[in-house]
This record gives sequence, C-alpha cells and structure tokens, in this order.
Amino acid sequence: MTESLDRQTAAARLRAADDILILSHKNPDGDTIGSALGLCLALRALGKNAAVLCSDPIPKMYEYLDINWYDGSFEPSFVVAVDVASIQLFGENNNVQEYVKRANLCIDHHGSNSGYAYATLVEPQAAAVCEILTDLIPDNLGVPLTPAIANCLYTGVATDTGCFRFTSATAKTHLAAARLMEAGAEAGRLNEILFECRSHSRIEAEREALESLEYYFDDRCAMICLTRDQIVQTGVANAELEDLTSLPRSIEGVEVGLTLRQQPDGSFKISVRTSRDVDACAIARRLGGGGHNRAAGCEISGNLDNAKRAILQEVQKELARCDEERELE
Amino acid sequence: MTESLDRQTAAARLRAADDILILSHKNPDGDTIGSALGLCLALRALGKNAAVLCSDPIPKMYEYLDINWYDGSFEPSFVVAVDVASIQLFGENNNVQEYVKRANLCIDHHGSNSGYAYATLVEPQAAAVCEILTDLIPDNLGVPLTPAIANCLYTGVATDTGCFRFTSATAKTHLAAARLMEAGAEAGRLNEILFECRSHSRIEAEREALESLEYYFDDRCAMICLTRDQIVQTGVANAELEDLTSLPRSIEGVEVGLTLRQQPDGSFKISVRTSRDVDACAIARRLGGGGHNRAAGCEISGNLDNAKRAILQEVQKELARCDEERELE
Ligand SMILES: [Mn+2]
Ligand SMILES: [Mn+2]
Repeated sequence: MTESLDRQTAAARLRAADDILILSHKNPDGDTIGSALGLCLALRALGKNAAVLCSDPIPKMYEYLDINWYDGSFEPSFVVAVDVASIQLFGENNNVQEYVKRANLCIDHHGSNSGYAYATLVEPQAAAVCEILTDLIPDNLGVPLTPAIANCLYTGVATDTGCFRFTSATAKTHLAAARLMEAGAEAGRLNEILFECRSHSRIEAEREALESLEYYFDDRCAMICLTRDQIVQTGVANAELEDLTSLPRSIEGVEVGLTLRQQPDGSFKISVRTSRDVDACAIARRLGGGGHNRAAGCEISGNLDNAKRAILQEVQKELARCDEERELE
Repeated sequence: MTESLDRQTAAARLRAADDILILSHKNPDGDTIGSALGLCLALRALGKNAAVLCSDPIPKMYEYLDINWYDGSFEPSFVVAVDVASIQLFGENNNVQEYVKRANLCIDHHGSNSGYAYATLVEPQAAAVCEILTDLIPDNLGVPLTPAIANCLYTGVATDTGCFRFTSATAKTHLAAARLMEAGAEAGRLNEILFECRSHSRIEAEREALESLEYYFDDRCAMICLTRDQIVQTGVANAELEDLTSLPRSIEGVEVGLTLRQQPDGSFKISVRTSRDVDACAIARRLGGGGHNRAAGCEISGNLDNAKRAILQEVQKELARCDEERELE
C-alpha cells in the first residue's frame, strides 16, 4: 500500500531529500517532461543534486527544453516519478526499472494511479502534473517560479489540455497558466512550437487520409483509412497518427468518426470517436475492443472490405439505438 | 474627437442610460457577438431595454448564443458599439449606419480604433472585448456573471485568441477565462463547437489545398493554391478560406507559407505568412500589397504561372536578405 500525501507533506519529503532522481514515463509527452525538468530546476535551486531519467528520447518538438539528464554523477538516494500511473509505463531502457523499484514518491494526476511508489500525491482534478507543480513549487517547496521553470510547466499544462481545449482544462488550469505567464513563460513562442508545427510526413498522411474520406448513413458517419504502404511511405509517427483520429469526427454533423490504420500484420486497427450521446465503447466492444464513452478502439483482421463491413454494421446498430432513445425523450 | 473613458466612467454611462442598442461589426465573429449579447444580458439584468443589431446574420457555429436581436420594440436612446474599430466595419444592412451616426459609446480592443463614437473605451492590451467585459460587467456595472453571460464572454475570449494559442492571449486573458468558468461558462462544450467542427466544404477545400501543395527553396517555402472553380465547387466560406492560409506556414521548417486564391475576376489573392525573422510585409509590399510583419497579402492579375513566378521571386529575395542578416549575427 502506498501512503497518500498532501502537497505540504510531499514538498517536505523533497526538501528533506538530496541526490534526487526524477523519472518520466516512456514515449514521453509534454507533461511528464515538463514536470520532470521543472521539478529538477526547482530542486537544483535549493542546492540539491537532481537529474531526469526516461526510457525513451524526447520528441524533437520538445528540444527547446534543456533537460538535465541523469549521467551517473551521483548515486540517487531519493527517486520521484512524475505523471506515471503504473510500473509498465516506465519502459525498459536506461536501467529505469531498477530505480522504479525504489520509488520514494510519485506525483500524478491520473486517478488510476496504481500506487507503486512508497508515497503518492495524486490529484485527479488537475489537468496536468505541471498544474499541480505550478503552485507546489513556489507555495510548498518555497522556490520562486523562474522563467525557465515556468516554460517547463507551461509546456505540460498546454499539451495535456490540447492548448486549453479539452474538458480536462478547468478554471484552475487557466489560473495556473496565468501564474506561469506572469512568471515569464513564453506562451506565444511555445504555442507556436507545440501547436502550429506539423511534420512533412504528417501533412502527407493528412493528404492521404482526406483522399480516403468516405461518408456513410446520411453523413452521420465519416471514415478515413490508411494502408500499411501509406503509413510506411509517408513515414508518419505514431503520435501523429493518433492526432489524425480526431479528424473524421470533427466534420460538421458527423456523429461517428472512424480511422482505420493497417497494422504490420495486415489487420486493421480502428479508432472510434463519437459525439455526445453515441457510445463509442459499445461499438468497439462488440468487435472485441473497448475504451471510453466517446473514444474507443478495436482491431479487425482480414481485408479492408471485411473490416469496413464489420465496423459499419456496428455503427449502424448504435446509431439506430440512439435514434430510438432520442424519440423516447 | 472622441472622449476617452476608463472602465468606471463607461460603466456609469451605461448605468445612466436606457433603451440601449448594441451594435456589432459586419461578418460577425465570436468577440463582437459574444460581447454584444453578454452586455445586452447584463443591461437587461439591470431592468433596462437592450437589444443587439448587426448588418449580417451570425455564422451557424454561434447559434448556441440566443441573441436578443433588435426588433424595433423600443426607440434607442443610447447606442453602444462593441469590437468595431471603424465606421466601414459596421456594414450597410438593417439600417445599421443610421445608428452608427449617433454612437454614444464604443468599447473596443483595437488600438487602431478611429474614434467615431462620442466616447470610447479602448484597451489595446486586451485580447478581446469579452476580456474587458469579464471584469467590467461584475466590477463596474455591478451585475454578477450568470452562466449565460459567462458563455457569451467565453466565446469571444476563446475565438479571438484561437483558444489561447495566439500571442494576444496574456496572463489576464487566462484570468478572465478562469473567472468565466467559475461563473459557469461551459468551456468544454463551447470549445468543441468552436474549435473541433469543420464544415464539409471546408474539408473539401482542405483536400484540394493539400493536393496542390508545393515546396520551394529547399522546403523553406510552401504554397497552396485554390482556383476559382475549386472555391465555387467546394462552396467554402470566406472565413474558412482565411483559416486555411495558416496551413502552409505550419509545416515543419517552412519559413514562408503562401496561399493563392483565385478571385472572381481571375486575379490571384496571395496570403503571405512567415516565421520569426522573415518579413511578410516586405514580400507583399513589393507587389503592391501590405500587412504586418508575419502576415501580409497582395493581389496579382494574370494567370497562375505569372502569379507564382512573381511571388516566388520576392520570397527568394527576402529569404536571401534573411540569410545575409543571420550570417552577420
Ligand atoms: Mn499528464
Ligand atoms: Mn475582438
């Protein structure tokens, strides 16, 4: 069992520690990197040894963050994980799992956190770990927010909320953004890097996806499809493909958006995105998949025609169910 | 000469008035509509007659705002314009210009406001008029922010900043968003309507645009082009075409993004978008156009090949100038 901490106690543990190793999750995103480096800079400002370790390299986009990577120059005596909900998410490279075993503290905003660390500060209402640290670092750890720390934390707050677009962004998230900008976060420059830059390969994949766009059921369903060849030829990264799955649902009047991606074994990975009262999970579950109410997924083997037929059949059923329900209202 | 007011005085004039007509600019956007309706609801909460008038209908996207349109049921004795920088921007329909002549007050955030009203409250640092009203309505007018008013004001704050992405969004903008969400603004629902919904015709235009994508000068320049036929066939709205002009510049490594749109007379309207130190205005100016440092435009008559050749020549010159300057640094 992990010990549940409040901010004050978590900060006290950090203040009492030295030679601190900060762990991020594999396939690092803006929140796990931003919170790791932001915390690292704050701990160094207190005169401590602190460094960051991650199983994977960071995406090119985040290169403006000058990360203090762990180089073995001190033997960690305190290990803290940020934005990592469970042990599998740490990855296997860079000897990371050795340190995970003795994680003293985990700071997270995933309600699903498995409690693998000795002590845990979880705030599921926070949109990002960086939102928690925006107050914890100055108010509890006693380190003023510098422009460098503010840039780190802004990165996580902005990326985890799709630039304040997702429902996870609350009034507190905006208060955190305001505090970070007052402390010198260069929001304009960072937003341009984080949200207005698409790789050549992503643009190519978008072109192919739009080329494949098909509408079904009186335009209530839109589908895009990328074959293995197209994915390989464009060289598009997986994270970029993930982004693309929001495209079909974003079209006016579309209640079910489908994205079919052919896997190396030839099968089709299908992402289902739905609007308000259409149940994405119900659609995916009947094909052996699962997920959330509005975002779910499944995998179908066989050729493209089979995959399309199978998923469209389930979409049709779910739309019919919704129509019935709406009539009853 | 217009009289410059502070918030307190502007609010006092509104409190002293009744039978208030609120004017929005033509081709209305989220800020002019959101601030007009938000102010209207606040004035009605004070027991006053108040209504909104605009030269043009509002885009479908904003239909969730239940606007109190002026229906002639009272004779306006006080006219206030919101988010309108100059007289031409009011448009000509619905007898709007009759009321503009006797505008008692203008609330705006455009530093370029021409001062056409008897009195003006201009705050150029504000990202939106809705940002000003977020504090003015409760703090100066004395009307608590209701969820309905908060939804109006959130609409303007979010749309004028591209959902907090543009450099115009400051710490104060985020503080306003936080205050509006605390007052009941449904940010998640509104963001989905405002930022995650693209019309069929826009998607079609995007497809055609990506199809036309060309790179020049070692991929430092990207160009998309829509012919008159394509624009007419897709049925894409002008505002949506405006949005598209950010596409070529958003590609990784692209310093100059060009969008060519054929006009009804056959000439090409060219939008120039540049990154940090490339001067868009210098490029456009040499072809008889103008604009800002990073966003400018010009128009070239003649066929597509001519237009391309002319604009690319100027792009090349400007890139060469930048290279020289960078070498000197
Ligand atoms: Mn996170
Ligand atoms: Mn405005």
